[in-house]
Amino acid sequence: MAFNFELLAKDPSGARYGRIETDHGMIETPIFMPVGTQGTVKSLAQEDLRDIGAEIILANTYHIHLRPGEQLLAEAGGIHRFMAWDRPVLTDSGGYQVFSLADLNKITDEGVEFKSHIDGSKRFLTPESVVDIQLDIGSDIMMVLDQCVEYPCSEEDARKAVKRTTDWAKRSLEAYGPRIVRNDYERVLFAIVQGSVYPGLRERSARELVELDFPGYAIGGLSVGEPKEDLYGMAALAASFLPEDKPRYLMGVGFPEDIVEAVARGIDMFDCVMPTRNARNGTVFTSRGRVILKNAANTRDFGPLDPDCDCYVCRTYSRAYLRHLFMAGEMLGPRLASYHSLYFYLHLVRQMRQVIREGNFTEWREEFYAKYGNTLKNN
Amino acid sequence: MAFNFELLAKDPSGARYGRIETDHGMIETPIFMPVGTQGTVKSLAQEDLRDIGAEIILANTYHIHLRPGEQLLAEAGGIHRFMAWDRPVLTDSGGYQVFSLADLNKITDEGVEFKSHIDGSKRFLTPESVVDIQLDIGSDIMMVLDQCVEYPCSEEDARKAVKRTTDWAKRSLEAYGPRIVRNDYERVLFAIVQGSVYPGLRERSARELVELDFPGYAIGGLSVGEPKEDLYGMAALAASFLPEDKPRYLMGVGFPEDIVEAVARGIDMFDCVMPTRNARNGTVFTSRGRVILKNAANTRDFGPLDPDCDCYVCRTYSRAYLRHLFMAGEMLGPRLASYHSLYFYLHLVRQMRQVIREGNFTEWREEFYAKYGNTLKNN
Repeated sequence: MAFNFELLAKDPSGARYGRIETDHGMIETPIFMPVGTQGTVKSLAQEDLRDIGAEIILANTYHIHLRPGEQLLAEAGGIHRFMAWDRPVLTDSGGYQVFSLADLNKITDEGVEFKSHIDGSKRFLTPESVVDIQLDIGSDIMMVLDQCVEYPCSEEDARKAVKRTTDWAKRSLEAYGPRIVRNDYERVLFAIVQGSVYPGLRERSARELVELDFPGYAIGGLSVGEPKEDLYGMAALAASFLPEDKPRYLMGVGFPEDIVEAVARGIDMFDCVMPTRNARNGTVFTSRGRVILKNAANTRDFGPLDPDCDCYVCRTYSRAYLRHLFMAGEMLGPRLASYHSLYFYLHLVRQMRQVIREGNFTEWREEFYAKYGNTLKNN
Repeated sequence: MAFNFELLAKDPSGARYGRIETDHGMIETPIFMPVGTQGTVKSLAQEDLRDIGAEIILANTYHIHLRPGEQLLAEAGGIHRFMAWDRPVLTDSGGYQVFSLADLNKITDEGVEFKSHIDGSKRFLTPESVVDIQLDIGSDIMMVLDQCVEYPCSEEDARKAVKRTTDWAKRSLEAYGPRIVRNDYERVLFAIVQGSVYPGLRERSARELVELDFPGYAIGGLSVGEPKEDLYGMAALAASFLPEDKPRYLMGVGFPEDIVEAVARGIDMFDCVMPTRNARNGTVFTSRGRVILKNAANTRDFGPLDPDCDCYVCRTYSRAYLRHLFMAGEMLGPRLASYHSLYFYLHLVRQMRQVIREGNFTEWREEFYAKYGNTLKNN
């Protein structure tokens, strides 16, 4: 089987239902990808991910490159074997972390020089080397190196970043092509649309990358501090210049409502640390909005976390018990909260697939907000 | 069904195989009880405990009394409902923690005054109140308040502690009797033999408590710094004065080899934080001895943690992956290590039951050490 995307249904709203095939299995879209930064989704085991119906996970190239190093994963036979996860894996290029976490030394047309945030060692990444690293990691879907810009960013700087992103995408393709078979399975390369909040630059970035004909496209540089209307607007705009028959991935987004809104604008794939990071602090997402577990109101609440949720945590444990775990600083708290919140996200995308197929996305969206609470300020 | 112990087999060595019945299910002995200090076995979920075959867990009265308070557990319908664990639970009396963790103010014949190690609040425990607290918690097996002494301890101080322990045991019985039915299930009271490392005091303590006819007996005040020969010697001595037809519980013990040696000396029940506490630091117990996961030797070891173990962790993950989790500070590391080490302890007691029934305990013990390594210095 080779990588393939099929658009199976489109709701009048523009929301899409589709299917991605990879050599490690099928993914239905819209999909949310739990983030397994260092080869583990924090606090969860791989069997938990299977239980909650995770179809694909994301791993961070930057983190794995620094520790334990892609060479170790290659020796293990790739990330699937290393972490005992037999479903698809997507890796980012590491660019975002270099720009946000590392001590950035220098960015040139050649690549990016930075210092590791772990040991201060000097590193250099190029469009070619990040593909090399991802090939060693062994992900099914790889990202090209792109130049991320901060928000706010001048149009001039954003223009330069778009140009460099296109140049780097070309170099990645020239070095490896869009599809590479290694260790008996295919890996594909996605390009990343940049352009900050400038419509003209987003259009230009999308058009230039579409010209290069990648198997899929990501939209990057959003959810970095811009207003919600820019997040949704830029996602919609970028999507409008992307081919119908390729998957569209909005990187690093976001809150449940952001995902609903982006799906309404034709986006297929998502990842975010939000559900797991918040869960570790005791804030969980439910069908009735966010719940802060440590709140005193939960002390004697012997009912489930989310009465509309049928996940293992909601079927088994009470809010009072979950609150106790967080108050007592017990590791089981973050684990159960992460399990539930990821289940909530995955259940959310599964629900959306269903209503898109039925052509009822818009009605469903209203019902969702009626229950969840409309937290959108700019929508 | 009422609490009942049946001695089903005795090996020529003196090792015993038996069965305890409680209203929350059956326990076969020898048994190891994972420690769920605050109503959770650290890093594990209750389904993990069921998976590894835990038949009973221990919860600490002192910790639960301070947070979240026994009243909350009573409102939840007891600890089984509160933590979603339907098998038996044993609680200690809280005495050991008062003597070791709290700021101890005063000990009198009446009881113990101390300050909470969490908020400094002043508390007072009596033989009657610790039973009250345990009844609210809702454990199946409760412990009487005893007076623990440090090691070393003068014979005079140890004698006073033995006298007080007997007096308190009497008061507990007078107030509640040995068996109390509440919320439709029976709870029973075990007494605790003290006497430090003085054979005469151990004998006296055991005889006085046996006279009172409790449903079971614990041996306390050991594994507090005394040489191994005293640990094993005192356990054997105390056991020799305990009735054959009652379960014998050696509190807070220990290493796998300590459990093997104590079983050889006629002990039936054990608890210890050892497997889980060590696991959180990356040290695990295996059939070939202790393994320190962070050791560089594990970096490229893609084989299982323990090739002779059939637990989920050993069947699924490699040493290299486990080492990576610990090096990267990932929560999944402590969780998987705790899972394996508890499985190892529970598998150990299951193996012992089998060989005791077959009369092969002594041969098995030699084989165990041949593989595990003989770490006993004083045996």
